[in-house]
Parts: sequence; C-alpha cells; structure tokens
Amino acid sequence: MEKEIIVQKFGGSSVANIERIKNVAQRVVSYKSKHTDVVVVVSALGDTTDELESLAFQLSSTPPDREMDMLLSTGEQISCALLAIAIKELGHEAISFTGRQVGIKTDKTHMKARIITIDGKRINKAFKDDKIVIVAGYQGVTSDDDITTLGRGGSDLTAVALAKALRAKVCEIYTDVDGIYTTDPRIVPDARKIKQITFDEMLEMASLGAQVMQARSIEVAKRFNIPLHVRSSFSKEEGTMIIKETEKMEEIAVRGVTCNKTEAKITICSVPDKPGIAAKIFGEISKQGINVDTIVQNVPHDRLSDISFTVPKADLNKAIKATQIIGSRIGAGEVLEDRNVARVSLVGSGMRSHSGIAARMFKTLADAQINIGMISTSEISVSCIIQQDLADKAVKSLHKAFKLEQI
Amino acid sequence: MEKEIIVQKFGGSSVANIERIKNVAQRVVSYKSKHTDVVVVVSALGDTTDELESLAFQLSSTPPDREMDMLLSTGEQISCALLAIAIKELGHEAISFTGRQVGIKTDKTHMKARIITIDGKRINKAFKDDKIVIVAGYQGVTSDDDITTLGRGGSDLTAVALAKALRAKVCEIYTDVDGIYTTDPRIVPDARKIKQITFDEMLEMASLGAQVMQARSIEVAKRFNIPLHVRSSFSKEEGTMIIKETEKMEEIAVRGVTCNKTEAKITICSVPDKPGIAAKIFGEISKQGINVDTIVQNVPHDRLSDISFTVPKADLNKAIKATQIIGSRIGAGEVLEDRNVARVSLVGSGMRSHSGIAARMFKTLADAQINIGMISTSEISVSCIIQQDLADKAVKSLHKAFKLEQI
Repeated sequence: MEKEIIVQKFGGSSVANIERIKNVAQRVVSYKSKHTDVVVVVSALGDTTDELESLAFQLSSTPPDREMDMLLSTGEQISCALLAIAIKELGHEAISFTGRQVGIKTDKTHMKARIITIDGKRINKAFKDDKIVIVAGYQGVTSDDDITTLGRGGSDLTAVALAKALRAKVCEIYTDVDGIYTTDPRIVPDARKIKQITFDEMLEMASLGAQVMQARSIEVAKRFNIPLHVRSSFSKEEGTMIIKETEKMEEIAVRGVTCNKTEAKITICSVPDKPGIAAKIFGEISKQGINVDTIVQNVPHDRLSDISFTVPKADLNKAIKATQIIGSRIGAGEVLEDRNVARVSLVGSGMRSHSGIAARMFKTLADAQINIGMISTSEISVSCIIQQDLADKAVKSLHKAFKLEQI
Repeated sequence: MEKEIIVQKFGGSSVANIERIKNVAQRVVSYKSKHTDVVVVVSALGDTTDELESLAFQLSSTPPDREMDMLLSTGEQISCALLAIAIKELGHEAISFTGRQVGIKTDKTHMKARIITIDGKRINKAFKDDKIVIVAGYQGVTSDDDITTLGRGGSDLTAVALAKALRAKVCEIYTDVDGIYTTDPRIVPDARKIKQITFDEMLEMASLGAQVMQARSIEVAKRFNIPLHVRSSFSKEEGTMIIKETEKMEEIAVRGVTCNKTEAKITICSVPDKPGIAAKIFGEISKQGINVDTIVQNVPHDRLSDISFTVPKADLNKAIKATQIIGSRIGAGEVLEDRNVARVSLVGSGMRSHSGIAARMFKTLADAQINIGMISTSEISVSCIIQQDLADKAVKSLHKAFKLEQI
C-alpha cells in the first residue's frame, strides 16, 4: 500500500519559544504512522525575522536584497533544526533541511523569489528511512547557488509547493487562530468558524482584508487543486478546509463579511470629460508603484466630473503628490484626501446563482443609517466604501442580516 | 601584475555589535586596493553560538550532531551577511558566502569536521568582479550535502585553509588582544608582545595554556607554511607574526612562559612493579576518552612504586573512578587526587641549541621557594607541575630570570 503524505506548516507564533516547539513536536509525531509520512514546514521563531531585519537596517537604509536573503533565511534554518531536535527527543526519527537541500529552485528575484521547480529526491529518500522531514520555509536557491527568500508569508508557499511536488493528500496550515471565520470575531462575537470555503472565496476574502494566509499560496493551491486545512496549533479541533468546491455551494450565498481599514480615498475634482483622461491619471499613479483599488467617476456635469479612488494608506502621500501633478497638467480642480474610510465586503461563490445580494446589502446599510461612498463588485463579492468609524457597525449589521451566525 | 590576496579572520568579539561590525567594515575596505584582493572570514556575532547551543540543550541533553551543525552554522551566516551589508554601505562591492558556497568540502564528522578540499571558483569569480569576499567561518558541507561545522575555533581553520587554497600572501587573525605575549600580561605587567614566533613554538604555547588560536589551525598553517599575523581588530598596530623561522632564532632561548591551571593530579600509590602495569592503567583511562598529560613514576621501593599523572579537571571524577577500578584489580594502594596544581612552562625553539635552560628553570623556582611536583620536557619546552597558588609567583620569577621583558 502506498503511504499517504501530509504537509504541515507551522507559523512563527507556533514555534515562538521552547515550550511551543515541544508542543509542535508532540503534534507532528501524533500524525506520523506506518501509513503516513509527514513533512513539516516551519517559519522563523517568533519575531526572529523582524530582529534580523532590524540589524540590517541599523547598518544600511538600503541593504542589498541578496544579502538580506542570506541573512533572513537563517531564521527558518534555526527553527527547523530545533524542531528536528525536539522530535528526535521524543524518540522519533527526524531530519531537517534548508530550502536548497530539498531542491527548491527559484528565480533570481531576491526577497520575493518565485519557485520554479522542486526536486523531492532528498525528501523521498528520508521517507524511505521512515523519517519525519522538517523543511525550512520561505526560502530557495537560484541556479547560481544564491539563497533566495519568497517574501513575507513565504512559508505558506513552501508548504503548498511541497504538497504539490510530493502529491500530498492535504496541506495543513497551523496558525494562532483555529480557522477562517464568517467575520472577525473581535467585532462580531457571534462569528462562526467556516467549515469549508472555496479557493476563490478565500482569495477574495484575503484580498479584501482577511489576513490568515498569503494570497499567492492560495493561488498556487487553487491552480494545482491542493486542499488546504487552516487550523490552530494549540487545539486538536478541525479548522477550515479550503477546497475547490464546497458541499453546500449552491445553498450558501454569502460566506463571510470582511472589513479593511488600510485604504484611504483620494478625490480629484472637476476633471475635464475628455477621452484618455483616466488613463493619464492612473498611468501616472501606477508609475509610482501604487496599487489603486476601487475607482468611481461621477456622471459628468458641464463636461466636468469628479473621480474618486482608493489607495493603501501607506502610499497616500505619494499618491496625492502624483495626482496633484497630473491634475494641474490636465486642468482639473482640487485634490481631496479622506483617511476615514473602510471597505466592507460580502464574499460568497453562491452570489453567482443568487441575485439580489447587493441590493440587500445596500438596504441593510441604509437601515443602519450608514452612507455608502463608493461601490465595487466582483463575480463573488460586493464591497462598499463607508466611513471608517461606522465600519464595525456595518459588519455587525451585515453579519446579522445574512444570518451568518446560523451557518 | 598578479594581485596579492590577503585573508582576514575576525572573531566573535570583533563583530559583537553593530558598531564593531562597522569598524570591521572600515578596516577591511582600507586593505582592498587595485593590487590587493581581500577575503574576510567571520565568526558568529558575540555569544550567538552559545545562545543557539542553549536553545538546543533546552530541548534535549543529547541533540544530534547533524542538527546542531544545521543550527550553529547560522551564526556565521548572519555575521557574514551583515558584514557584506556594512561594506556595501561604505561604497565598496562585497559578497557574502556560506562555507558551502565557496566549496569547503568536509568529512562527515559533524561538530568537528575536517576540511577535505576547497574549490575556490566562486571566490575567484568574485575577485574578477573586484568584490571583497566575505565567508562564513567554521563550516563546510559533506559529499551528502549536509552542513558541517569544524569545532570551536573553527573559523581560524576556515581562514587558514582559504589562505592555502587561494595562495594568499598572509592570513591575518584579528582578535581582542593585540598579539602573542611573552606571558599573560595580567600576571606580569612587564610582559612583552612577541614580534615573531615559530609555528612550533606557537603550537607548544597553545597546548601549554596560551589561548589565542586554535591549535589545529596553527598545524595546518605550519604544514603549508602560511604566515599568520595575530593582531587586534581595535588598533592598527602590528601584532605577532607566526612563521616558519624567526629572524633571531638562534639567539633567543626562551620565547615565553605559559601557565595552565586546568589540570588536576592523580596519584595511585603502591603499584606492584611488574611489566605491563602502566599499560593496564593508562589503557583503562584512555578507554574513557580522557587525555592524560604528564606521567611520573617513582623509583620502586620494595617492588612497589607510586604513579602520578595529570588529567583535565573536567575529567577528574571519571578518571578517579577508572583508576580505582583498575587499581583494585592490579592490587595497588589508595588513589589520591590533587586539584591544587598548575603547569608552568618555558617555550622556545632556541632550547634546541641552548643547554641548561631546564636547570636554570629549576634553580629559579627553588630560589622562589616553589616546590616542583612533576617535570616534563619536549624538544622546545620544559614544564613543571607546581602548587596552583604559587603559579603566578612562578611565572613572574621565570619571566624575570629569563629577561623576557627585554626582548
């Protein structure tokens, strides 16, 4: 009988100290059996990555990316060695590997490299020796034999890519929450853990503010149809399965409510209503490397219209500057900024077959006396930009209106 | 014109914090020129290695050596990346490498691996690009692609081995003292820095208690005749050259006085004077992995003699136990221990051609009212085991008697 393979990924908070590393070791060995091989991917201990980064920035405000990768990759190497030691202490065979040692080849984009291939040879050899395999997350190696890292959250990507390469049955993502919730339980105590969610829904939720998993990893899992199980490293309870199609797909219209307070709104007033104007404005902003989200243009009045859009708060100043320059060049009016905005969204694949979700959302917000500033929709989500100080109220109202506490 | 190559090794205290790393960077770039390529070997920052070891020992009292190497090798990887960042910040080109990346191949003895070959390809390529090369000390890789470390002080060995492989002009060992002294300046304020010392003298001094450099590295430097320059990372002053033959070799009989307080003395009384008895005793002790140093056997009296020998204090209990077992088996008397001993030694290649050094040493100690318990000699050293609390007095008297403050 062929053995089943499980890939388990433990984040930094799961291995933040010696006690937690021991806890993870206990957990891992409980999954290893005659019929199951286990690969564990670990992140750096607690705040190690931040601490290493801080050392580098004390030496240079622009440390070279290649050297940063050399530096930061040590964090995961430390935790995988420690976990292997902890597992061996429990009387099980374990072996730790760096990303390079298990053949994770990447391109040469240091600090956010992309995985090109994985050669699972060393892992399969370790499986033959019945060893639990521990892999340093977040890292790979270029064809020039330079160490690379995969960007923040890159250990998720290591886990998913290994699950694909090894044809694992499931890829478990252990974290400090016990799954994906219908909304943030700190805002709505009634929020329910979602048992199953589709890749598309999860991607939408991640891009709209839910911060459980790195979006790139979900995309890769989706592309290769690798089931993800997001669960807590501190309890044995089942978490949330992220899969291609959920059981009750047709019935459930709305899977969750998300809220994102990291954006700001820019409005450029009295823009002449000529073809190509929008292209000019957003071309200039994108040149600055700023991601624009929702864009709304008013119906023109006297051949002049107002254009509003949202950008990450961190990029607001740069975006305002760029908008002012292009605004004066095209003869537009003043440029306004608004930091007091939030994006509240409904997400659910069921929207494809259920109509009236958006209308019900608008009515719910209206009933709660919440004004909608901008609206944007995708195939499986509806978002409203509202005043930030009303965001929690909006989330509560929507969670209740769509009966998410009952799913 | 062919470029000259310098290898510089900086120990942990030289890179213990951000300011010191910047200091090392300044120092390194001052040596790089059109005509000189520089390879820098670095140890782990300050106490990093001890801290990593302590994490491992919190998980297991016997962490596997392979995993320890995976863990400990990160210390040097961190410091070499940081030094490369600091050098680039000064406007110079630099590139960091792990031991593996510069092709340091070792055997499979984890925690104390031996270097088999060094393939300098990547370093030579970096030289062609006019880069300063920073190499993580203390580590290599096996033919199975497992990371190894070279044992405590292994960064010295990395530096010497690289100097050999690259045919470097000199290998500079930067440390927190400014050279080798005629004796410990904390005991004798008049102690003088030695300008030149031979490999043999340095090896003898290291084995007799001087703790500046790892003995294995000196052996390798001797074998390949690589001049070592031991000097301070905090001053520009010349340190001590360790070379094959010093200039005034014939004139100077005694190069230095060393003192070692890490040994203890064991005496096994009333040993029957039969052939093969010594072999039995020391065979048993060596089976325990204990290194015995000086051995003295009294002239037998009534076919019984006392045998005394020294062992490291750390192994004393184990050695006493082994000695008692074998003692009762061969019908010997009681076993005595003495922790209050020290070894005081004179070292100098000139002893080969100067006679009477030992006699003058014994007279000096006698004049100072110091009793000699045991004596041992090598071709270039004389050692006396004396009472430990008289050791400093002995060192002072000998330093003065041999006029070492005047060399």
